[in-house]
Amino acid sequence: MKHATSIAALGLDIVDRVLATARQWKREPHRRHLEGKLLGMLFFNPSLRTRASFEAVMLRGGGAAIVLDAGNDTRKLEDRVGAVMDGDRPEHLKEAVPVLSRFVDALAVRTFAAGVDDDIDNADGILRAFEHYATVPVISMESAREHPCQGLADLLTIEEQFGAAKSLPVALTWAPHIKPLPKAVPNSFLLTAAARGCEVRVAHPPGFDLHPTVVAEAERYAAETGGSIRFTHDQAAAISGARVVYAKAWGPATRAALPPETVRQHGDWMISPEHMQGAATDAIFLHCLPVRRNVEVADAVLDKPWSRVIDEAENRFHVQRALLEWLLH
Amino acid sequence: MKHATSIAALGLDIVDRVLATARQWKREPHRRHLEGKLLGMLFFNPSLRTRASFEAVMLRGGGAAIVLDAGNDTRKLEDRVGAVMDGDRPEHLKEAVPVLSRFVDALAVRTFAAGVDDDIDNADGILRAFEHYATVPVISMESAREHPCQGLADLLTIEEQFGAAKSLPVALTWAPHIKPLPKAVPNSFLLTAAARGCEVRVAHPPGFDLHPTVVAEAERYAAETGGSIRFTHDQAAAISGARVVYAKAWGPATRAALPPETVRQHGDWMISPEHMQGAATDAIFLHCLPVRRNVEVADAVLDKPWSRVIDEAENRFHVQRALLEWLLH
Amino acid sequence: MKHATSIAALGLDIVDRVLATARQWKREPHRRHLEGKLLGMLFFNPSLRTRASFEAVMLRGGGAAIVLDAGNDTRKLEDRVGAVMDGDRPEHLKEAVPVLSRFVDALAVRTFAAGVDDDIDNADGILRAFEHYATVPVISMESAREHPCQGLADLLTIEEQFGAAKSLPVALTWAPHIKPLPKAVPNSFLLTAAARGCEVRVAHPPGFDLHPTVVAEAERYAAETGGSIRFTHDQAAAISGARVVYAKAWGPATRAALPPETVRQHGDWMISPEHMQGAATDAIFLHCLPVRRNVEVADAVLDKPWSRVIDEAENRFHVQRALLEWLLH
Repeated sequence: MKHATSIAALGLDIVDRVLATARQWKREPHRRHLEGKLLGMLFFNPSLRTRASFEAVMLRGGGAAIVLDAGNDTRKLEDRVGAVMDGDRPEHLKEAVPVLSRFVDALAVRTFAAGVDDDIDNADGILRAFEHYATVPVISMESAREHPCQGLADLLTIEEQFGAAKSLPVALTWAPHIKPLPKAVPNSFLLTAAARGCEVRVAHPPGFDLHPTVVAEAERYAAETGGSIRFTHDQAAAISGARVVYAKAWGPATRAALPPETVRQHGDWMISPEHMQGAATDAIFLHCLPVRRNVEVADAVLDKPWSRVIDEAENRFHVQRALLEWLLH
Repeated sequence: MKHATSIAALGLDIVDRVLATARQWKREPHRRHLEGKLLGMLFFNPSLRTRASFEAVMLRGGGAAIVLDAGNDTRKLEDRVGAVMDGDRPEHLKEAVPVLSRFVDALAVRTFAAGVDDDIDNADGILRAFEHYATVPVISMESAREHPCQGLADLLTIEEQFGAAKSLPVALTWAPHIKPLPKAVPNSFLLTAAARGCEVRVAHPPGFDLHPTVVAEAERYAAETGGSIRFTHDQAAAISGARVVYAKAWGPATRAALPPETVRQHGDWMISPEHMQGAATDAIFLHCLPVRRNVEVADAVLDKPWSRVIDEAENRFHVQRALLEWLLH
Repeated sequence: MKHATSIAALGLDIVDRVLATARQWKREPHRRHLEGKLLGMLFFNPSLRTRASFEAVMLRGGGAAIVLDAGNDTRKLEDRVGAVMDGDRPEHLKEAVPVLSRFVDALAVRTFAAGVDDDIDNADGILRAFEHYATVPVISMESAREHPCQGLADLLTIEEQFGAAKSLPVALTWAPHIKPLPKAVPNSFLLTAAARGCEVRVAHPPGFDLHPTVVAEAERYAAETGGSIRFTHDQAAAISGARVVYAKAWGPATRAALPPETVRQHGDWMISPEHMQGAATDAIFLHCLPVRRNVEVADAVLDKPWSRVIDEAENRFHVQRALLEWLLH
């Protein structure tokens, strides 16, 4: 069974194929390549881009989507194996996932990190349960560990701009926020950029390290593709000469190490035009959205021509279309 | 106007036709028999199987569904005739139902029992209002009194397994729960099993009787089909030799008779492998889902080959497809 | 870029064309004029008629809709320019609107008046932001100032009944309610009736004046079409001899001028059969729905043949179909 749940589940060849298809089809009229196909979409967390772009992929392709908000449209869902289910979650994934599998051709799921323990989030239990219980292909619309469609859209945007990502200096910089956010987006940008051979610089304040297994996986990809990865606490050094400045807020490596209010600190990490001046003259600015303006990124960065955040969001459509083409055929 | 709101509204001939169509079409490729048809779905209560399966029926058939959560997507809906509407329900079914009827080809509605008075629930006021005010066919996605699509799916599952349900010994057994649940599912299993001529045994603790009008209706069907119905407080006796063990939690006959916490009692009624040992050697286990594992039914029952709960859920799709074929043509 | 966001945005010629198309197409079978088209629908407020009728338009026409509840399905949306986004609204319309524009062929938005200041509501900031940031046509599903689809449906209903609206005496009468409601519906009825040349009489208690800019705009239309507008505090005088009685609750002109509880007063303004006796013998009764029965309007008005409220709601479908035909071609 094919699953589009992580870069590792896809493998570098499929990543290459998906990006090539996305780039080519973007220049052509919509094709009805998903005629008669049904996608079940289950959200444990809210969404705008993800929901709209996946529905658009299915509908433009001649198929359709069934959208369910877990815990709103449905009852709350239990995932603990062996649980005595006497609490507020009256349905188990052991039933919900195989039942939905009977009605649709593929299942898409969004589930965020709990944010209590990076090791637990990194294990991605709910997504693993979907892969295990589903009898149709599963596609991740973001999970605790990764957001593969976002990473692919990021790299499509970069490759459209610069032709190829190989050896391109790209800076992933931590940004301030009002609360600790999941690491799925920075993880996926790091993994996908490494998988495409970028020279990746990651900048964050002390205590905000990404998970060692993610870093190790990215380094394997870099070794295979000729890319490189460097971590630093010096934001200016990371951005210096970069062709891509990718900003994203994320939480500390462990809650024990840093109190939550820490994320409000480091206000000087907010991306401003001054930061952009340090990058290459043709640098573009990326962010996965939603972005808290003037907290993570200044208006004067987002509202300038170097910003490609809307194209980047549009590219969610194009990579997801290519992913579903691969997944359902 | 045809309505698919209860076994009585359908009649035994249509029940027969729907089950025959469902069984036959299940073996064939999807057909686009609902091309251009629109189903309006109005939920007063959450749903996973029902929502996904009805949408899948419409979309697979070439039609589409418009899904509305009453009180969330819409404002809250009033049903009391003559009400001075100065409370929290700003729209009356007298308007909502005929208006929706103008936009769609059929209306599907889910509304649960209030659970305060069995006589009131049994009268099924909201579903009656839909039948009365609608100008298109109405289909029940579960109401206070019945869940006809569930009963039909249950019997399709049984007839697929055993060829025919006539004279088949089937046990409907009450199960513990953390709160009093509606009786629509046990009512519908009883009515549909009787309508197909089963030898039905119903087991529940004292005080959890089903409503006399439901029992009387089921007995009329049994008399017509050569089936039989027996009620007992002895769970083991009901299960003994049964080919089907159907577990379901439901609330007491009257709230006055039994305090709510009673439903947490009778923990020994939770279906375990030991219970299944008393059934026939080829017995199958059914439950409408969602099921509270290790409260209603033990993991060791649900995770064994005798469990057909996923097939049973899939059969919701097949009987609903056949019902809509009948309803819309 | 075409926008269907107000009568002014349409202009009187398009109003004429839309009503003509709606009236003609209503008598013909559904046509698949929106094949392959996608409408994005974003709701800041709940809806039944609007949601169901717009989805039906798209689906009947061969297209489809993507429906998003802002703040539920999506995160809450910020609209203040230059805001430091450290509150409960993590996404700005500056991103949300252009991103959605990339996925769909047109954007429909519903956003209610805040009801704190009529000048602010009248400026219609959120709708203006949609027009500004969108890169596809925008259609209003009701905004703070207007509900153009409702006004068009109202006039279609009137013209179907009486052939033409020109010089027809129509009474728009304020009705009591349990809370102050937005003025979009009375505004749109006034504007559209004036745009079609009606002799409009508006009756409300002192302090419930409509906004001067709305009145001025309506008077310009009346001058152009040969219609007329008269305001009065005498409900009986307004209704006397009218061919159409249109009832609607709305809030005071300013919150400072009148305490909220005032809207519960004037109970004698509730439309009763006695009120209808004063109208022309062939008068029809209209209300946009939802209606609080026996608060705004008596059962004995709504349940009589003079009531056209269900036809009026159905006409939402017909005018929206014609609007989208114009907007997307």
